Amino acid sequence: MAGARPYGKGTMLKLYYAPNTCALATHIALEEAGAEYELVRVDFASEEQRKPAYLALNPKGRVPTLATEDGLLSETPALLAYVAHRFPAARLAPPDDPFAFARIQAFNSYLCSTVHVAHAHRMRGYRWADDPAAIAEMQRKVPETVAACFDLIEREMLAGPWVMGADYTICDPYLFTLAQWLEADGVDVAKLPKVADHRRRMRERPAVAKAIKAEIG
Amino acid sequence: MAGARPYGKGTMLKLYYAPNTCALATHIALEEAGAEYELVRVDFASEEQRKPAYLALNPKGRVPTLATEDGLLSETPALLAYVAHRFPAARLAPPDDPFAFARIQAFNSYLCSTVHVAHAHRMRGYRWADDPAAIAEMQRKVPETVAACFDLIEREMLAGPWVMGADYTICDPYLFTLAQWLEADGVDVAKLPKVADHRRRMRERPAVAKAIKAEIG
Repeated sequence: MAGARPYGKGTMLKLYYAPNTCALATHIALEEAGAEYELVRVDFASEEQRKPAYLALNPKGRVPTLATEDGLLSETPALLAYVAHRFPAARLAPPDDPFAFARIQAFNSYLCSTVHVAHAHRMRGYRWADDPAAIAEMQRKVPETVAACFDLIEREMLAGPWVMGADYTICDPYLFTLAQWLEADGVDVAKLPKVADHRRRMRERPAVAKAIKAEIG
Repeated sequence: MAGARPYGKGTMLKLYYAPNTCALATHIALEEAGAEYELVRVDFASEEQRKPAYLALNPKGRVPTLATEDGLLSETPALLAYVAHRFPAARLAPPDDPFAFARIQAFNSYLCSTVHVAHAHRMRGYRWADDPAAIAEMQRKVPETVAACFDLIEREMLAGPWVMGADYTICDPYLFTLAQWLEADGVDVAKLPKVADHRRRMRERPAVAKAIKAEIG
């Protein structure tokens, strides 16, 4: 973990990430919030995420992990909620409105439990099957399942201009992050004009450009 | 949808559920909160969840859906957060503590994005493959993948006596709900003493007994 120091009380926020993963969503949110944080790259090529030093931070062996002065956190919807609540001045979620907050959590839950999972069957089919033929069959279906998810987002969820409507929230970096994978998943983005427009406007935001540049150089 | 009335502004909370689904988690939370709500059964046997009347409430065609006076909500982690925030006197989540709330969301996100997904490969493999051989192969691996999830919960997440430690939270009904499926998923519960103990103590709670009785009669 390049740049990693032993984790301890009092450490500033530290985001453990790997490029081209859903960690980008939290990375963007930290930038939007104007947070001070350190970025720590986890080297997936050498399977650093499965080695003891990283498993001590996140026993799931996945990214992202966020180290805070109170302890460690994982799971993107939780990290995004944490950033929104910790930096309320950035207005990344509506304060004190249970329904509005639940709508945000509902969208982000759909992304993590259905959209990301559909995508994961392309490169991570070994999680749910051992037989190479079954893994290949899962891979074959990914363009269809991911397209179905994004079709629902396009028709029913993306209010525009931002996911929740007029206000930019923690839903936007998460949608953007997963929408980055559409071409590789074999989905025709031309059929998703609202998603494509959202992606284009996200790329214009300084926080997004800065986060992408920091991850891929 | 037995008992369903047309949805409209001003309606009391209404939980759309089917027995033996993750809707039980929200059902229990509503009971724990002392909420007034109406329970509406969606008939999976006749595939009511895929018919226009239900899709108008939840275009994903899944349960649970919670109708509130502000609008419709879906996704269990969002519904649980909504119940906790709407009924703060029930103390189902710590108020005004971003880190403590994020820990709760992290646990519930893990349940929805990893544990429930591992389980779903037993009966819902058609979501990710068409070939019957691939679907059978997914089914074969379920005891292993679900056991791995619950092993991690047993070792790393379930603080005891409740998931987050001394305080009962919205993590507890959700864990209980998914742990109900362990035997059917082919997992040896004897190897999960903390999970088994949690399940036993959950069943002793009046709110849990009442919710189960209402769902399965």
